[in-house]
Amino acid sequence: MVEFGRLSWVISAWMGQAMGSAIDVAVDERKRMAHQVDSLDLLLFVCLLILTIVTLWTFKRRRMPYLHESGLAVIYGLIVGLLLSFTGSPRSESSLFIDNAHSAELFKFTEMEGPPNQLLVSVLLPNVSQPKTYTYEFKSQVDSEDANDPIKQKATFNAEIFFYVLLPPIIFHAGYNMRKKHFFDNMGAIMAFALVGTTISTFVIGLVMYGVSRLIQEIPLKFLDVLYFGAIVSATDPVTILAIFQDLHVDPMLNGLVLGESLLNDAVAIVLCSAIEEYAKVSLNGGDLFEVDALLLTLFKFFTTVFGSIGLGAFIGCLTAIVTKFTQLRDYTLLETSLFTLMSYSSYLFAEICGMSGIVAVLFCGIFQAHYTFTNLSDESKLRTRQFFETLNFLAENFIFSYLGVSMFTFSKHYFNLFFILGAFVAIAVARACNIYPLGMLMNLGRQQKIPMQYQHMMWFSGLRGAMAFALAVSNTATPVRQMFFTTTCLIAIITVIFLGGLTTPMLSILQIPTGESSEEREELISDYEQPMASLPSHTNRSYLARRWKGLDQLYLKPLLTHGQPTLMETLPKELTFLGRWFTSDMQLQTQSREALGPRNGDEMMGTSAKDQDDPPLLGVADQD
Amino acid sequence: MVEFGRLSWVISAWMGQAMGSAIDVAVDERKRMAHQVDSLDLLLFVCLLILTIVTLWTFKRRRMPYLHESGLAVIYGLIVGLLLSFTGSPRSESSLFIDNAHSAELFKFTEMEGPPNQLLVSVLLPNVSQPKTYTYEFKSQVDSEDANDPIKQKATFNAEIFFYVLLPPIIFHAGYNMRKKHFFDNMGAIMAFALVGTTISTFVIGLVMYGVSRLIQEIPLKFLDVLYFGAIVSATDPVTILAIFQDLHVDPMLNGLVLGESLLNDAVAIVLCSAIEEYAKVSLNGGDLFEVDALLLTLFKFFTTVFGSIGLGAFIGCLTAIVTKFTQLRDYTLLETSLFTLMSYSSYLFAEICGMSGIVAVLFCGIFQAHYTFTNLSDESKLRTRQFFETLNFLAENFIFSYLGVSMFTFSKHYFNLFFILGAFVAIAVARACNIYPLGMLMNLGRQQKIPMQYQHMMWFSGLRGAMAFALAVSNTATPVRQMFFTTTCLIAIITVIFLGGLTTPMLSILQIPTGESSEEREELISDYEQPMASLPSHTNRSYLARRWKGLDQLYLKPLLTHGQPTLMETLPKELTFLGRWFTSDMQLQTQSREALGPRNGDEMMGTSAKDQDDPPLLGVADQD
Repeated sequence: MVEFGRLSWVISAWMGQAMGSAIDVAVDERKRMAHQVDSLDLLLFVCLLILTIVTLWTFKRRRMPYLHESGLAVIYGLIVGLLLSFTGSPRSESSLFIDNAHSAELFKFTEMEGPPNQLLVSVLLPNVSQPKTYTYEFKSQVDSEDANDPIKQKATFNAEIFFYVLLPPIIFHAGYNMRKKHFFDNMGAIMAFALVGTTISTFVIGLVMYGVSRLIQEIPLKFLDVLYFGAIVSATDPVTILAIFQDLHVDPMLNGLVLGESLLNDAVAIVLCSAIEEYAKVSLNGGDLFEVDALLLTLFKFFTTVFGSIGLGAFIGCLTAIVTKFTQLRDYTLLETSLFTLMSYSSYLFAEICGMSGIVAVLFCGIFQAHYTFTNLSDESKLRTRQFFETLNFLAENFIFSYLGVSMFTFSKHYFNLFFILGAFVAIAVARACNIYPLGMLMNLGRQQKIPMQYQHMMWFSGLRGAMAFALAVSNTATPVRQMFFTTTCLIAIITVIFLGGLTTPMLSILQIPTGESSEEREELISDYEQPMASLPSHTNRSYLARRWKGLDQLYLKPLLTHGQPTLMETLPKELTFLGRWFTSDMQLQTQSREALGPRNGDEMMGTSAKDQDDPPLLGVADQD
Repeated sequence: MVEFGRLSWVISAWMGQAMGSAIDVAVDERKRMAHQVDSLDLLLFVCLLILTIVTLWTFKRRRMPYLHESGLAVIYGLIVGLLLSFTGSPRSESSLFIDNAHSAELFKFTEMEGPPNQLLVSVLLPNVSQPKTYTYEFKSQVDSEDANDPIKQKATFNAEIFFYVLLPPIIFHAGYNMRKKHFFDNMGAIMAFALVGTTISTFVIGLVMYGVSRLIQEIPLKFLDVLYFGAIVSATDPVTILAIFQDLHVDPMLNGLVLGESLLNDAVAIVLCSAIEEYAKVSLNGGDLFEVDALLLTLFKFFTTVFGSIGLGAFIGCLTAIVTKFTQLRDYTLLETSLFTLMSYSSYLFAEICGMSGIVAVLFCGIFQAHYTFTNLSDESKLRTRQFFETLNFLAENFIFSYLGVSMFTFSKHYFNLFFILGAFVAIAVARACNIYPLGMLMNLGRQQKIPMQYQHMMWFSGLRGAMAFALAVSNTATPVRQMFFTTTCLIAIITVIFLGGLTTPMLSILQIPTGESSEEREELISDYEQPMASLPSHTNRSYLARRWKGLDQLYLKPLLTHGQPTLMETLPKELTFLGRWFTSDMQLQTQSREALGPRNGDEMMGTSAKDQDDPPLLGVADQD
């Protein structure tokens, strides 16, 4: 095999001399082969998703609520992964090994520390005078003993694709569709559960696993390592729970609490992960000794990251609102939708570049887009943006769950340790209890609308781990420690998604939690969007934070950022009215003057004024018969 | 610099021993830095697109039709690229070089010929007993003299992203929105222009450039090389022309001809490129001698690829139609849309795996989806799929044109040759003339509805080169020959898109081509979708091919694949009626029986029957007020 490989390499070099462009043909050929294998990989997942959709439809039709899409995708993924692991990967069969050590001449690393990012390889071919230089990009680290086994070198998940392509639409969609009222009303509780609760959970898991790790002889684990593991598996999954709660129309307060917490949770877990690494870098002795300076720095960084990201996301949301309010972009819905999408995506990228959390930024960008920009959009763009993100979200999240299932069997670097896995399941159950119940009790002291005990049980129960935990674990599987973390996280995600997800509906009825609040909820949601003129803050069961926010929102932000009433001319102090005029749109003025004639007609006018305009000229076909 | 680099590498190795997990931190850190640079790159393009959209809106508002979106995106790209080339790339500044040749121990190639796809590198670190093994993936080939210059090693365009992510939605959208009537009516002419015309164009460009290449001393060019170049630049661009024609509502026959040709064109160019490589491989002497066997094999492969891909795309389109007809998936619009998207994408992947042309497959899949599946979809999915692909298409194509502009200045391996560039411009003008006028004349002999001379002039003029030529050129830039092809193709694309694109509107009025057929066209389109009961073939100005197709379509395919009338029970021979019953849906039977009561009411009933059903339960918010 080695001989044949060397032979063909020599032949190709000879052809390169003989015909000038044969090397091009060889490069093209190689690319085409890689392309075919990639296509096969992708097709596998596309077929898995198709299968999931068809099964899902059958289940929905027969009213079998036990399995939801995430669970289905995971199970199908597991089956296909199992089949693949028997048949072997197509990739390994099409490649030959050449021990070509002696023809390598020049060898360069471009990196500061760790394995080099890029490699330059010069190869002196037998009959060519000039050496050929190729660039290579870092892919992964393998165990030395695995290096000769092509089957074990299957493609690892490209975490960059996850973070750039799959994740932003999911998180944005969650923010964009969040029932804002219940989010803002429970903002204090959600923040507490997410910020304090996730930190508690991380430390509890760290402590429990540190105890467990004493039982494991093969791999020495430091406290910082297990703390990192704690941060990874503290990210609870919004996807599955969201889908089930939405189908069943669960009580809005519980929905808001669970959804808000699990979303912010993801973000906090990411920030915690980097904070722990930050701490490991700052404390020079590797984190064995407790260092106050390093801890303070880490804490400072943690809070600036979280609040900086929130601010950035909110800022870009408001900027989009301003742009859509003061331009007539709404005449061209395709441009409007595209701008909306691009601005929202840019919040993710901006945050990542500034070293903040893109997830938090894009989540809050989504919330602000829904709150302000949405009301400025044309009717068509409203529908278009919602449906666009809904479709992207559905595809992305089912892809992730399929992948989760497949990789359980095909990923070559699994490291199973029974003690660690069992310990981890106990740890996450304990840690979630230490998060929910004490914080719930504390918050009930201050809240007028208490969080009932059965709601707290349900919150404890809904601690599924999903896509985010998987992504955090898969992003680095270089060492055995991280491989063990990865394997354990995969198992936790698969088992919680299938079992806890499947048992959510029975659990809701056992705990006697009200469901089916559909029509009321919907109406409220619509009125939330369509009536920017809602009454000023009067509810008394809101938290202090929620009340302050509501005041600011109604008096300054909505008048500034949307076409709603009242205008800034009314809400700003008298001496600033000229400033208010600048930021009041013509549409606001029209509504105001009509209102003066016949009070409380503003809403209908708002509705019709958008329709009076011409048909959007860029929409290809008028198929809204 | 080298010393510092080596130092940090040693330090990291020492830390790896001292604290066990520091190497993880290093890997994470490295990934995070790469992530930030990637984010910056992406953000650049997102901002470019935002800028394009805002400018486009300003232009549309002020009714300035001279610049269209592709031209704008290219121009902004050029400006940003120019600025970037002055400031230098952020990537090169953050990397250090280490000459680490002596610590590399093991070095393996996994490939048959040419540079290896994957590289395994074992590095023995100073204080660690076991060597670390890393895997690297092939990225590109660089000139040996450039190897030491980090600025020249900027990221090359990842052609895989282009082919998997950006291209399929663009082509599918074009097929899905094609005015099918004018496509099918002119099918013969379109096929002739695309298949024969593109081949003529390739050979004419090849011949002209072979003459030009005698003037170039630096690079020896074989005939096959310039033929390959001919294939690359024979792909005319549908994007820009489509946008302009659609805005101006150009005469439908011209629209159908230009659009159909430029779409199939792309596909034919891809197939020609691989056919030429195939020929180079098959003919052992490198293509200098004319070999009948190789040519026949190549021709055979060419035709099987084209017709195989058409068949595959059509098959998957019909399969989707069957699935949507006989399941009640339409009750869940999100599932329906997702399935539709995934099935369509799978046609691309299937074709690529089978070694056929994914572009042709996805184009015809789009045409068949629009023709059959579309009528089966729920009203909401009709809107949703159109808008989803419209948005994806807009984003993807503008991204490509921005990238085209930026890469003109930032791509490091440009190879300018004035003779070649000037020759290429002459060659494409001549070749397009040799394609359009003789074929137009020939076809007018057989056509009843002639193609007027000014239409032929317009077809000659609308030979813009765009995304596909760029993608074909960029997919291999390993050798100076290919680099020269790439540079020339970029210039051709930029100049034709800006100038020919900008002059389309004046040219239409100079040639006195009728525009503004908007309302009539639209109605016809709608009726095309909404009336599956259109009259049987009667038009006499259709080509033979079109008439045969229409008969098959009306009698068998539409009854089988859609809910339209007549049913298969009526159109199949008497003895096969039982078979017809199987493939007739309940909805078809209902319509039929109602029709028996009051003839010609079928359409309204079709319209309402879809609306009688329940609201789609998966749609998040009812915002269609």
